Formats: sequence, C-alpha cells, structure tokens
Amino acid sequence: MAALSLFLDVPLTRGADRLLDAYRQDPSPDKVYLDHWGCQTDSGEAWVCPAVRQTLRQIADDPTLDHEYLPVLGFPRFTQAATELALGRASCAVTENRAGGVHTVGGRGAVRIGAEFLRRWYDRNSPSPVVVYIAFPQWDSLQCVFQDAGFTEIRPYHCWDPVKLAVATEGFLAVLESAPDRSIVVLHAPEETGLSPTQWEEVARTMRRKRLFPFFDVPAQGLASGDLDRDAWALRHFVTHGFELFCAQSFSKTFGLHDERVGNLIVVARDNETLARIRSQLQKQVMATWATPANVGARVVATVLSNRALWGKWKQSLRMLVEKIMLIREKLKEKLRILGTPGSWEHLTAQAGTRSFMGLFPSQVAFLAKHKHIYLHQSGQFSVCSLNSHNLDYVAQSVSEAVSAAAGGAPGLSQEEME
Amino acid sequence: MAALSLFLDVPLTRGADRLLDAYRQDPSPDKVYLDHWGCQTDSGEAWVCPAVRQTLRQIADDPTLDHEYLPVLGFPRFTQAATELALGRASCAVTENRAGGVHTVGGRGAVRIGAEFLRRWYDRNSPSPVVVYIAFPQWDSLQCVFQDAGFTEIRPYHCWDPVKLAVATEGFLAVLESAPDRSIVVLHAPEETGLSPTQWEEVARTMRRKRLFPFFDVPAQGLASGDLDRDAWALRHFVTHGFELFCAQSFSKTFGLHDERVGNLIVVARDNETLARIRSQLQKQVMATWATPANVGARVVATVLSNRALWGKWKQSLRMLVEKIMLIREKLKEKLRILGTPGSWEHLTAQAGTRSFMGLFPSQVAFLAKHKHIYLHQSGQFSVCSLNSHNLDYVAQSVSEAVSAAAGGAPGLSQEEME
Repeated sequence: MAALSLFLDVPLTRGADRLLDAYRQDPSPDKVYLDHWGCQTDSGEAWVCPAVRQTLRQIADDPTLDHEYLPVLGFPRFTQAATELALGRASCAVTENRAGGVHTVGGRGAVRIGAEFLRRWYDRNSPSPVVVYIAFPQWDSLQCVFQDAGFTEIRPYHCWDPVKLAVATEGFLAVLESAPDRSIVVLHAPEETGLSPTQWEEVARTMRRKRLFPFFDVPAQGLASGDLDRDAWALRHFVTHGFELFCAQSFSKTFGLHDERVGNLIVVARDNETLARIRSQLQKQVMATWATPANVGARVVATVLSNRALWGKWKQSLRMLVEKIMLIREKLKEKLRILGTPGSWEHLTAQAGTRSFMGLFPSQVAFLAKHKHIYLHQSGQFSVCSLNSHNLDYVAQSVSEAVSAAAGGAPGLSQEEME
Repeated sequence: MAALSLFLDVPLTRGADRLLDAYRQDPSPDKVYLDHWGCQTDSGEAWVCPAVRQTLRQIADDPTLDHEYLPVLGFPRFTQAATELALGRASCAVTENRAGGVHTVGGRGAVRIGAEFLRRWYDRNSPSPVVVYIAFPQWDSLQCVFQDAGFTEIRPYHCWDPVKLAVATEGFLAVLESAPDRSIVVLHAPEETGLSPTQWEEVARTMRRKRLFPFFDVPAQGLASGDLDRDAWALRHFVTHGFELFCAQSFSKTFGLHDERVGNLIVVARDNETLARIRSQLQKQVMATWATPANVGARVVATVLSNRALWGKWKQSLRMLVEKIMLIREKLKEKLRILGTPGSWEHLTAQAGTRSFMGLFPSQVAFLAKHKHIYLHQSGQFSVCSLNSHNLDYVAQSVSEAVSAAAGGAPGLSQEEME
C-alpha cells in the first residue's frame, strides 16, 4: 500500500460560517451574535411555532403512519398546499393546472435542483453562457449553488443602497437593463426588499422586455407584513403577467422548523403539458441527488396548512412575530436617537422582515466585532430577532460608538483593520 | 409576452419506477409486487422497528429540543455512532481519528456527495477520465448519480452468475483485473453478495495491486446474517489493510425508517489531517446542495445506538427479521421442490439478505408480469420480504409455471414479448 494519501492535493477550505466561528471563539461575556437565520425568542432561543410542537406529537402518536419512502417529488399534499400558499388558490397558474411543486431538502435544495435544471435546459442554443444575477448579500450563500450546478457567469447586484440607506431601485433596474437578454435573475425575499408594487411592476416590465427569467427565492412568506397574501404580491404579479418562473420556497423560518428542511420548488409553466415535462426532468435529477425528500417536516406543514384551527394558530404566530420585529426596530431607532447617534435611523423602521440593513459601513461592522464583540454580516445586514431585551441597550450603545468613532475619525479602525 | 414556452425542447422522461407504475396500473386482484426496497410485515405493510416509534414519541415530547439547523455536516452524535457501527469501535481508523462521517440525505445523498467529491479531487492528473464500476442491478439506480456528478466513463459489472446461479467471483475478479488502474469500484451491499471472506481477501488484494478505489455502499448492515459485525466484515477488512475509502451507509431498511432519509458518508483517510481537508471540501459541497440535513431520523438512530435498552431491542428486531427472511427462503424453495419445478433452487437459501436473485431469465420475469401479474426486477432480483403467507403459494406456483413453460418451450413468451 502506498504510504501517501490519494488526496494529498485536496486543500482545506474554510466553512461559510466564519462569522459564527468567530463569535463562538470570542471569550468575551458581552458577545452578541446578530446573524441568526431563524427567529429567536427574547431569551435568545430558537423560536418554534406552537402549532409545530403540537402537530409533531400528533404525528409521532399516530400508529397508522408507516415510514415508507415518499414519492421522488415528495409529499403531494404538502407541495400542493405550499404552492397554493405562495401563488394563491385562485391564481391563474393554479386553476389552469400549470403550476406544481417539487418537495425539496429545504430552500437551498430547491435552488440547487432548479439551478441544475436551468443549466441543462434553459436557453440551450445560446452561443454564450447564460448569466445569473444574485443580490448581495445572498450572493454569499447562493453563488456556490449556481456554480456547482454548472453556471460559469454569475454576477452580483445590489438591492440596498448603503449611502442613501434605502432600496436601490434605480441601480437594480440599471442592472436589469444592462443584463444580456435571457439572463436568470434570482429575486431573493421579494417581500423584504422594500420595493413598492409600482416598482415591482417596473421590474416586471423590464424583465419581460429583456426576456429575463425570474427565479424567486422566498424564505419567509408572511414575516414581512404579517399578511401572507401581501407578502406574495410580487411573485403573484409576475405569474399574473404570464411569466414562466421558478420559486424556491422555505418553511424553516415561518414554522421555526429549521432542522427538518422543508422546501418546495414551485414551477410555473406555460401549460400543463410543459409542466409535466419539466417535472419529469426534475424527478430524474432528484433521483440522482437525494432520491426522495424527508417526510416529517412536510407532514407538519401540510397538516397546519390544511387544518382550520392549526392554520389560525399559525397565522396568529406570524402576526405576533411581525409585531415583535417592528417593536424591536422602533426601540433600536429610539435608543440610537436618544444616544445622539449621527445620521438618520428611519431606515430601521422603513424596512420589513426578519433581516435588515443596519446602515453601517464595513469598517463600522469590523469595529463592532473587534471592540464590542458584536457580530453581524459585513454588509451591515442583521437579523432583527437576534436583538432582545438583554442585548438591545448594549448593541445600540455600541452601534452609536461605532458610528460616532467613524464620524469623528478618532478611535475608528485603521485601513488595515478594516480589511 | 411570447406565446411559446421557454421549455419547448424539454423532453418528457419516464421515471425510474416503471415496475411500480406497471404494478399499480394492473387491475388484477392477484397482482403481487416483489420489488419493495424496505422490509414488509406479513400483512404487506412497511415494517417499522418498534424502537423507532418509541424514540420518535420521546423526541416529539421533549420540550427542550429546539428546531435549529443542524451543522452542515449533520448531527455529530449520529455520524460518530454510525461510523463506529460500520467500522467497529476498535477499528484502527477510528482510534487513529482518521475516519469520519458526513450526515447525508439518505444513502443516495451519500453516494452523490461522495461521487461529486471524487470527480473533483480523485486522480485529477490522469490524462484519461476515471472509470467507475457499478454492479448490476444497482446500476439502474446508481449510474445516474455518478453521471450527474460528472463522470463520463461508467461501466457495469456482474456479481451474480445467472447460469451457475451463484456469486460470479471469477467474473468479478476478471473485471477488476481488466479495469484501468485507479478506477473507482462501487461495492454495493457487500454482506449480501455472497462472497466468502477468502474471496473478499482476493478482491482486496487485486484492488490494492491495481490501485482501485473502493466506494462501499451499505444499505442494510445486519440484515444479511443478523450479526452487525459479521455483516461489516468486508468493509473492515479493507480498512484494516490500509485502504483509503468511502462508504455510503443507510439506516432506512434496518430501522424501517425510509421516509426520514438517514444516511452517512463515511470517509476513511490516511491520517486525521487528510480527513479534515476532505471533510472541509465535502462541507462546501453540502452547502451548495442541501445546506444541512434533516434532523429527526438521525436523532432516532443516534438515540437507539447510544441507549443500551433501545440498542438491545433494535438488535433483536434485526435478528427476528433475518430469521423471518430465512424462513421465507426455505418455504419458497420447498414449495418449488414439491411442485416439481425443473432445476435446483438451493440458491434461494444460499443467498442472504433482503434482496436475492430468484434465478429467472428475463423472459421468465416477463412471463410472470404478463400472465401472472407478478412484478420483479428483470434481473430476477426480488425482495424476499415482499413474500408473505398470503402470496407465497401463488408466487411459487407461478414461478414453477414460468420455469416449466420456458423448459417445455410451450406457452412461453415469443421473442417479441420478451423484449
């Protein structure tokens, strides 16, 4: 046997969780992590929708359930209910039977399966590679998905203007205008971007003219406005206007059920026959990736969505979460104002949803990590639910110092530290 | 908006479940399906290990469990227990800390992630493409996995000699001898192939000399002999003899927990540092595929493997299943003998495990489907557990007729029907 490994040239690669790693390794008792993906309770624990616990117990107690494999495309009752939740039961695509779901391993699995399909079948006769556009900061997690699916031209775009502290509508439209015809545009968390219906209409018009393909990615329908239909406005607008599209849908955040990986890839096609052909190819891909998805999470979601009492409970949970999120935003803004922090902090309450831009430059974010043990994404995006009554004062005080330091130029970071 | 679909040229592809589809569409009340993947009870229902139901209830009732994402590489307690179950706690690879698991979406997910890694990093400097060998009939389900992972040279081999009605040792060794150096050989269900320890030693010697890479695929450790250690003999032999290898491990069959997709990709590397580098790349791949695996199934398996009482219960379940499987084999053989079926049926009891070769030619398999509404894989492989007290007589009588018809040449199928 050769003494050397067959894998001598495999390089060590660092995980995507560098921020979490840095937080974990920080020995400071003051440390705060502001980049959770899910919602947190006031004591800093992961929030779980009460209807989820109840339904999980019902499922575990049901002796009639066997544990047979699900079909390759997943639990049919789940994909149907999930697709109707996103598109609306009265959607033309639903009534015309040309929208369908593929039950996937989380939202990430939906993006992956969708990306692989598009790489194989979308715009195949184009002489140049299809370009994919992904917004910052989702670029960090989704770029590798399209890359591994085989796309070679992936470009980032901005939906947030860090100077104007507002949604970057003009910049976004300019990107769409300059994109090669038939590019794929990933529209992440449309309900949280802050684009108004009128602005979405303009986006749709531009995308139609340029024949751009919309790949929606909806991680938390209902957690922006508290209203499931309102949060789905942009997606439904595109469907109503005749687009063929994909939509990756996740139930991790809205059910607090992150660990069971409940996702759905919604396909809206021109007609039922096209949908059947697309789904047959997706089925083939799934067979070669994970064969069939896991069951219990989708069973919980399907049960809640189809049971009037549980559905009411769940919707109430969403509204309560959204109210809590808005209250945290208000409190943070107010505290920053009282502390005399330079600048306007209106953008904190103008944004919606679980993740928002704090309105900090990378140097200020670095200052917070280095001097205050507060960890958030370098774009300044943070999870609003990571703030609670125990850490809000400290975070506000620290943000105020970071901004004042940068404004005064005094104890800020050197150029070297900022990198 | 263009009236034509963007996906006009996407062809409809038929699913891999053609046999199941044919069975479902067969209106005959006599129909029998003999290709289940999991174990069935005598009443034809999917078997679930009693310890699974008990553990699922405990998990659902535990209010301290949040539903946070698992780490990208999965539930650590599960991957460790699963890896030790396969390799043995005292394995040199375990004690030297150079074996580790990646929690995957079922065994299929483990093969996929492993295949993608090998395509990227294994034998990169070879001028010709790396060849992958997969045994029949697993070829049907695994060929697409390696193909989608980017391999272009995938070749089938036989482990079963349909004429001698015995394991095809010589043919298998000849394939290994003729394989290009450094090819990858998928060794599916080593405990069920029927190769003796001496024959496995020869396989290992040949693979070492030819520098072939072993990719084990272990879907049902414990269900061949009823003894977990004995079923792992071949894998452990390779590890003891210093091979670096992959092993895709599944708990679907042995726990009767097919729908929660509990898999583990075991990596055995030259040393701990190599293992860390390999796992870091696997982590990157997982991030771009399903981000993190589902939890509950792995939690059940980890709980059972680490709790003395549940572990005892589970091992007893396995032994009972194996006894049942052996009894069905005996009964089928005896009935075929009593019916005066031409040929020897000793191979039915000489094989072990849940899936076995009936010893039929494709024409006889086709006869059974067409005239008897009995559906099994065209290779003649069938799931022993699909037989029960309600269908055993009918299946034996039908097999006898199929064989007699073929022997007599009379009511057999025409060449056309056989295709």
